[in-house]
Formats: sequence, structure tokens, C-alpha cells
Amino acid sequence: MPSALDPAIAARLKRDAAGLVAAVVQQHDTGEVLMVGWMDDEALHRTLTTGRATYWSRSRREYWVKGATSGNVQHVKSVALDCDGDALLVRVDQVGGACHTGDRTCFDAGELEVTAP
Amino acid sequence: MPSALDPAIAARLKRDAAGLVAAVVQQHDTGEVLMVGWMDDEALHRTLTTGRATYWSRSRREYWVKGATSGNVQHVKSVALDCDGDALLVRVDQVGGACHTGDRTCFDAGELEVTAP
Repeated sequence: MPSALDPAIAARLKRDAAGLVAAVVQQHDTGEVLMVGWMDDEALHRTLTTGRATYWSRSRREYWVKGATSGNVQHVKSVALDCDGDALLVRVDQVGGACHTGDRTCFDAGELEVTAP
Repeated sequence: MPSALDPAIAARLKRDAAGLVAAVVQQHDTGEVLMVGWMDDEALHRTLTTGRATYWSRSRREYWVKGATSGNVQHVKSVALDCDGDALLVRVDQVGGACHTGDRTCFDAGELEVTAP
């Protein structure tokens, strides 16, 4: 199904084999990186026009409005596309935790050891 | 070629069809999101053990140490894996601009209009 995304924006997207671009989600005031989601043209269109961050779930193969179930919605403050068109930076005001585990961010529990000399 | 990446870390990665995970790169002190790169196991191994952010170039199909040509290297401060294993948050000290255009970040020139009511 064709998306209603502005064709001028659609022309700038460099999608992966699955038709998706990575969306980095950042808390607009603190700068915390909250999560990474995935958007196709339609998810980006909905995000830009509804002001609620909307993603494509690769595992469930459906659109999801962040927080629709949990209440932990993301109010969109701004969206920017990167220089080569394959990543978005979505600045939001996150209600509650961004992670389904209850953590504030999806990276809180995943620190890896850097062993550089 | 098998990578020397710690098998305990490798087991946590959920790679895309091309064997890659997204790497979100953030300036460690200001919180700026600088760019998004892509890492396979070996790029992550090199990033963790050399302290220089290293990516897989999907267009050139080769490893690249950020700044090897430009001098705009990224000194790695920390690396975290997200809750579902398909994205990394790499906190760095970025020398100079992160973007090949000369901009500080790869998102500086790409603001999209949010038309939400």
C-alpha cells in the first residue's frame, strides 16, 4: 500500500532490504538516548502528522504507537533525517520508561566492557 | 571469517539479514547524537578492544575506523547493547565534526517538518 508520506521526504530515504530506516529516539531535554525503533514510510508519515512516535515492529509485523498499551507515550518534538538518508533522530518527551522492561532507556542494562589499553 | 568477539557478547546480538546491528553514536558529555553506523561482530570487537569506533561500511563493504582519513576520530568512552540486542549505544569523545559534510552531527541539515495538530 502506498504511503501518504510527503514524496519529497520519501525521495530522500535510503531504506534497508526490508524497507526500513533506523529511528534513534532521544529525550529532547536531557539528551538521553531512549531506544532505537524502525520506521517505514507510513510509520514516519504517522509520526510526523500525529505527533506520536509510531514504529514498524519487525517481530510482530505491524505498526505500533509507542505507549498505546503501556501509556508510556512519546510526544514528538522534532524529527531529523541524517546525511545519507538511512537514519532518523526523533526527539521526544517520553512519558515514563521507554523500555518494555520498565527501565528508563533500553540501554540501561546492557553495558559492555571496553578493554582498550 | 569468525570474529574474535567475546562469545558471551556475540550470543546476545540480534543481527539483521546482513549480519549487522545499528550503532548510535553519542557525544559522551553533551549528549549530542552524532551519527548512526553499522557494526558486525568484528567491528564491535575492534571498537571494544581498540577504543576507536570502527564500523562496517555497507556501501564500500569494508571496515572503517572513524577518522582514519579525516582525523576526526572517536575515542570510545562506553558501549551498551539494548534490551533486544539489535542496537548499540556508543558514547565517544568526537574530535572535530562527525559528519563527512563537515557538520558536527549527521542530523544537523536534515530537519523534517512535524505537522501534528
